[in-house]
Amino acid sequence: MDLVVGIDIGGTKTKIGLVDGHGNCLDQTFFRTREYPDLGEYQDQIKTNVDELLSKLDFTPTILGCGIGAPNASSKRGTIENAANLAWKGTVPFLEKFKEKWNVPMRIMNDASAAALGELLFGRGKEMTDFIAITLGTGFGAGIVANGHLIDGYDGFAGELGHVDMTIGDGRLTGLGIAGGLEAYVSATGLKRTILYMQSQYLDESRFRSIAYNDLHGEEITQAAEEGDEIAIKAFDYTAKIMAQALANFTAFTQPEAFILMGGLVNSGKWILDPLERYLNQFLLKVYRGKVKILESGMEGKTAAICGAAALIWEEHR
Amino acid sequence: MDLVVGIDIGGTKTKIGLVDGHGNCLDQTFFRTREYPDLGEYQDQIKTNVDELLSKLDFTPTILGCGIGAPNASSKRGTIENAANLAWKGTVPFLEKFKEKWNVPMRIMNDASAAALGELLFGRGKEMTDFIAITLGTGFGAGIVANGHLIDGYDGFAGELGHVDMTIGDGRLTGLGIAGGLEAYVSATGLKRTILYMQSQYLDESRFRSIAYNDLHGEEITQAAEEGDEIAIKAFDYTAKIMAQALANFTAFTQPEAFILMGGLVNSGKWILDPLERYLNQFLLKVYRGKVKILESGMEGKTAAICGAAALIWEEHR
Repeated sequence: MDLVVGIDIGGTKTKIGLVDGHGNCLDQTFFRTREYPDLGEYQDQIKTNVDELLSKLDFTPTILGCGIGAPNASSKRGTIENAANLAWKGTVPFLEKFKEKWNVPMRIMNDASAAALGELLFGRGKEMTDFIAITLGTGFGAGIVANGHLIDGYDGFAGELGHVDMTIGDGRLTGLGIAGGLEAYVSATGLKRTILYMQSQYLDESRFRSIAYNDLHGEEITQAAEEGDEIAIKAFDYTAKIMAQALANFTAFTQPEAFILMGGLVNSGKWILDPLERYLNQFLLKVYRGKVKILESGMEGKTAAICGAAALIWEEHR
Repeated sequence: MDLVVGIDIGGTKTKIGLVDGHGNCLDQTFFRTREYPDLGEYQDQIKTNVDELLSKLDFTPTILGCGIGAPNASSKRGTIENAANLAWKGTVPFLEKFKEKWNVPMRIMNDASAAALGELLFGRGKEMTDFIAITLGTGFGAGIVANGHLIDGYDGFAGELGHVDMTIGDGRLTGLGIAGGLEAYVSATGLKRTILYMQSQYLDESRFRSIAYNDLHGEEITQAAEEGDEIAIKAFDYTAKIMAQALANFTAFTQPEAFILMGGLVNSGKWILDPLERYLNQFLLKVYRGKVKILESGMEGKTAAICGAAALIWEEHR
């Protein structure tokens, strides 16, 4: 049986799984990324985990290769560059080093682009040639599929839409210091910032008036909205409005058939999705209206990132 | 000898030319679009012009087909839809009707996308796989090439970047009523509007204080800048800054190797290009800095649109 090893490198966890050609994750494991600040030891740990997963199988698979999703990864150079949430600084020649330890076909890609490839091969994108996958977690990530292919960009850094400036002039700073950057508004973190902003703008009573920023969790905002908390409802509306503006702009770019959403913020369900649909329809150019779908990811949450990473290799065996 | 007929449908002129496989326009002609408000008569007039061009040749070519560039054209449906500057309203089944009159292979595409295809086959884009061609005329048009292919979009309306909203909140209205739309700032028309805006914001003396908006011509603004007119210089700077912001955002999308600029505003030369380069470098994400070129089109101005239209057919014979 042919299998691909999918690896998702995150600031907190590194997830490793074995993925078949239908996008099923047969088994998976993880370890804490921060425990291995040394690149060599980190890569050894991945290899140890892979060997463990393989030894648990009751058959001997053919490993077609290893696909890796990581923040700030360049698909064309095999590097991870200046990733804010990882211990390795500057430009890390990740693939080159990893190949010294494990001689299989390897590819690495920005995690959101890998997620888009996962949707294209195994998820909601299977029947589409043009869509944009968006991950709404701590940040805002995007992977763009046009003409049936993922857009890599000149040297592998396409799709950094979280840093698109949505303002002429001032705006919130992103983690990269970009004023007005989209992910400063539209992400789990952006929503928390908006909870503060709404308290500054309006006088509504709210449970959040007695919760400090550092104690605030995303799920609580959804719960508050359910209970009629006006600050929470206004924060969702504001977030959805800016997101709709961004999606309307993105539509003018590649005219996707759909936006496929995934990540923590999507769990807020109707509180974010209902106003998003309403504003999007309002902001879209007439020529696009009624032609753009908002979909939730078809991938299983826990293994989506692993399957997306594995899709980098499976794509070459289609 | 194989030739393609290239047709550029503009609000003012319809240009028709014969183009060889190297992008040379052997001969061309034009007529005034508004003189033929009836679609059937308009298409008859095109055919008459084509026959005239062909009869003047001293050899008998093989016509491979006819490529057409037009505003608001859908490449996938062969239609022109709600084009503000054309007499035909609603959705016009242009190709279907034209094929009844002339039975050759035909394609139609948004004019800016056709221009991008022209650059890809015959111009500055020949050696590139990822670039964005931008036309800066009355409006702001764009054609996006990624992975070596033009991005069409789900139903052929990709690249409408002139209507991207650059503001959260208020902004100038475009001709399509989009508040904050890019082309309300960055285009020959946008520059004229900015000449008014700068007079409203600053007290500098300027030749434009005695010229009404309707009497104002783009070339005059360049000339005024040459002569040290502060309002003109400030207007170019403002235009370049917003354009740089837009190009920085576009870079985050498909990470082009270059932006290829064409159209009237580019004739202002250093007055627009110098501040554009400076601001772009300031606004680009670090990961993109020093990797994005600003180029002027390599196509000859007079025939660029015709050759771009012809590229739609030549693309299929590469």
